[in-house]
Amino acid sequence: MQVDINCDLGESFGVYRLGNDAALMPYITSANIACGLHAGDPAVMRETVRLAGQHGVGVGAHPGYPDLQGFGRRAMELSPGEVEALVLYQLGALAGFCQAEGVTLRHVKPHGALYNQAARDRQLADAIARGVHSFSPKLVLVGLAGSQLVAAGMAAGLRVAAEGFADRAYNPDGTLRSRRLPGAVLEPAEAVAQALRLAQHGVTIETGHGQVQAPVDTLCIHGDSPGAVEIARAVRQALLQAGIPLQPL
Amino acid sequence: MQVDINCDLGESFGVYRLGNDAALMPYITSANIACGLHAGDPAVMRETVRLAGQHGVGVGAHPGYPDLQGFGRRAMELSPGEVEALVLYQLGALAGFCQAEGVTLRHVKPHGALYNQAARDRQLADAIARGVHSFSPKLVLVGLAGSQLVAAGMAAGLRVAAEGFADRAYNPDGTLRSRRLPGAVLEPAEAVAQALRLAQHGVTIETGHGQVQAPVDTLCIHGDSPGAVEIARAVRQALLQAGIPLQPL
Amino acid sequence: MQVDINCDLGESFGVYRLGNDAALMPYITSANIACGLHAGDPAVMRETVRLAGQHGVGVGAHPGYPDLQGFGRRAMELSPGEVEALVLYQLGALAGFCQAEGVTLRHVKPHGALYNQAARDRQLADAIARGVHSFSPKLVLVGLAGSQLVAAGMAAGLRVAAEGFADRAYNPDGTLRSRRLPGAVLEPAEAVAQALRLAQHGVTIETGHGQVQAPVDTLCIHGDSPGAVEIARAVRQALLQAGIPLQPL
Amino acid sequence: MQVDINCDLGESFGVYRLGNDAALMPYITSANIACGLHAGDPAVMRETVRLAGQHGVGVGAHPGYPDLQGFGRRAMELSPGEVEALVLYQLGALAGFCQAEGVTLRHVKPHGALYNQAARDRQLADAIARGVHSFSPKLVLVGLAGSQLVAAGMAAGLRVAAEGFADRAYNPDGTLRSRRLPGAVLEPAEAVAQALRLAQHGVTIETGHGQVQAPVDTLCIHGDSPGAVEIARAVRQALLQAGIPLQPL
Repeated sequence: MQVDINCDLGESFGVYRLGNDAALMPYITSANIACGLHAGDPAVMRETVRLAGQHGVGVGAHPGYPDLQGFGRRAMELSPGEVEALVLYQLGALAGFCQAEGVTLRHVKPHGALYNQAARDRQLADAIARGVHSFSPKLVLVGLAGSQLVAAGMAAGLRVAAEGFADRAYNPDGTLRSRRLPGAVLEPAEAVAQALRLAQHGVTIETGHGQVQAPVDTLCIHGDSPGAVEIARAVRQALLQAGIPLQPL
Repeated sequence: MQVDINCDLGESFGVYRLGNDAALMPYITSANIACGLHAGDPAVMRETVRLAGQHGVGVGAHPGYPDLQGFGRRAMELSPGEVEALVLYQLGALAGFCQAEGVTLRHVKPHGALYNQAARDRQLADAIARGVHSFSPKLVLVGLAGSQLVAAGMAAGLRVAAEGFADRAYNPDGTLRSRRLPGAVLEPAEAVAQALRLAQHGVTIETGHGQVQAPVDTLCIHGDSPGAVEIARAVRQALLQAGIPLQPL
Repeated sequence: MQVDINCDLGESFGVYRLGNDAALMPYITSANIACGLHAGDPAVMRETVRLAGQHGVGVGAHPGYPDLQGFGRRAMELSPGEVEALVLYQLGALAGFCQAEGVTLRHVKPHGALYNQAARDRQLADAIARGVHSFSPKLVLVGLAGSQLVAAGMAAGLRVAAEGFADRAYNPDGTLRSRRLPGAVLEPAEAVAQALRLAQHGVTIETGHGQVQAPVDTLCIHGDSPGAVEIARAVRQALLQAGIPLQPL
Repeated sequence: MQVDINCDLGESFGVYRLGNDAALMPYITSANIACGLHAGDPAVMRETVRLAGQHGVGVGAHPGYPDLQGFGRRAMELSPGEVEALVLYQLGALAGFCQAEGVTLRHVKPHGALYNQAARDRQLADAIARGVHSFSPKLVLVGLAGSQLVAAGMAAGLRVAAEGFADRAYNPDGTLRSRRLPGAVLEPAEAVAQALRLAQHGVTIETGHGQVQAPVDTLCIHGDSPGAVEIARAVRQALLQAGIPLQPL
């Protein structure tokens, strides 16, 4: 048993600063770096790739919808071909910075509404998986544990990583409670407990035909929540104390 | 003696169609493909890379300023670090589509105002060259014959290609006559004659200390001008009749 | 009995030209002018307002989602407050050009996915109506005949205009057949016949509890379809021959 | 003798928060509100107009270049017609929110590079003045004291307000020291002293033919600098103690 701790980073844009990238790096094993469409800009991407490299943190692309104003959190209805090209575009852009900085691109995790829609919509999930696979079949696709995105990645011949969220409340079907609803984001103490539970037992999902237990390969910490650094530190410590090794994807 | 014929392609965006990419492909040897910031979008980029691959046309990235409304033709004042990251971003994005389509990325040619400013501004030219070199030292950097961009590319250890413009009027110092001035774009017949002259003799540049003759490795045909296909066909024919072999970069 | 003929205009952006605005003006009575987010730019907006003024064509705002790449045709999920502000922003921007050109802003018609979603989603329709009403209660809100948008406009105390589409196929529930499906856009001859039928009899809508006949106040001609000018001319002629007066909103 | 204290506000965008708008309102008399192109979004604009109205702070439009990534601080080269339309677009958009919130739009102050270029470039300054005048001849145009923008506003028949910067270092010619240079932004204590000096004596400008004293009608406090609220409070207090009445434009 081992687990990865991932965090969405590189979400600043121009003069707008977001998150605590430098402070979080010591506590995580993988960084999902925004690719310039829902967040991030070329200078921020380069700086974040470099920073991750310096900390030995695994680098992944974090592609999202082209909606900076909505931070990629507003659902959009794109055709599968548009999604495939959109993912490839962002993957390539981040890979360029990796190449320039001598860092390996290891994984891909869709962002926000793209991630959430792909958890449920197999056609969308397949389009993402095709985009990733056409860039490189060696990349790891990260999706919500038990989701269509994980299934699509496996069907496409990709390695996949099932993700659990330390600081987000779950719906009984294994999807995340919407940020628009109260109680969507957990308190720090709850987040640590949930992280440990997810790493040890995975997620319990009610399918309508009984319960399924979906294992979790990587735990997400949100870098933009207040107290993110504290949560990351506490989650890391709790996992190590429980004897669970931390390992990048 | 040999020459390349290049054309800026993939400049459509969403529902907006521009140029005659498919019709031009048979007459050119290199395509400079827009990378989504001044023109082009992910779907257009993919389609254009694929089309170039099918025609055996050499593929290059055509990065520009992030100014879709001005089509990258409005000068902007970016810091060298911003330019370097901007070029890398666009290079990477196009390289992603090349990788997915099994096509080799061979060259880079800056677009519009970025190209024109870099012809005169060595600091800007150096930033572009650094961006290209950090992605891959094997790429060919295309710049205006006799310009600072060509000099910067050589200084950075890149292979360079000096470009001449079949259909654009020149200033005595070897720069292009501004599109805002009358007579900036040549008539088709003149364009063919100028193409032949450039391929055979290069450009004559008045430096203030006398004249310099700058050789031309690649000839640009503008794909968005009326009659572009006719011009491309005529230029190609004239070069071949003059016994000048056509060769991608 | 009278009817208005409206057309979506001002959809060019930067170097990208779309539609035949000048050629269509003589045949229409109202212009819906794009406001810079899904199409149009400041220079195009000004030019289109001026052109409409010169032809005595009624000017309306045509606000859409902030998605130039998708031309505002991709559904997005915005909060009601975001929609209200988005509509106000675009309304104000167009009103500025009207004020500068001495032209009266008369109506508002949402564009693309915003229009289609608001036909069915009352909460979204209410947000649009609130945005319009807060700008001016004198504006006419244009919505699909029989739709939630028309109902929302009336509930908000706005004057409304029920719209019919000359050149688009209808679903039995009175919504438009999706452009992604075959047969969504009618042939010119059919379009003329449908225009006449809509002006004279309105739309027949199956509600699940029987049929409703929804009258049509304004007929839409799509300016970006091939043959748009021919269709507009033919529709205008057919209406006049049938003795139906044409009148701006 | 009286003076206005203005501040650039409404510069947040989507999830990105910038500045301390609510905390600054009690200390200023005019707010320059970003219009969505270099900063601000529709929801932020509405909220900021409302907030200014609640505090009795005079509302002005703060139009900038369409360059969110560069925060409108990167010089761009637009044609006069493009600038005129760009200013009108942003003016109209903000005026829409003012109309909806029952607040009067009183002034216009260009932002960042647009402001700085227009201080020196009369053709650009004239284009801005034309845009403002065509929207309404009653608006006050704010420009750097002694600049071409002030001259252009007067020539266009607008009321103008000459601006001084409390917290920015000046060049001997009365322009602002570039933010790229060290010492461009003053320490709080210096800022207060400079504010008082500017309000009482105006700016001393070396013209090459001797010195000119340009009076200052409005003092700018930067809302995004650390300690902005403290500076605003101290400047206000110093002015009132010196017996200089504070008055919106």
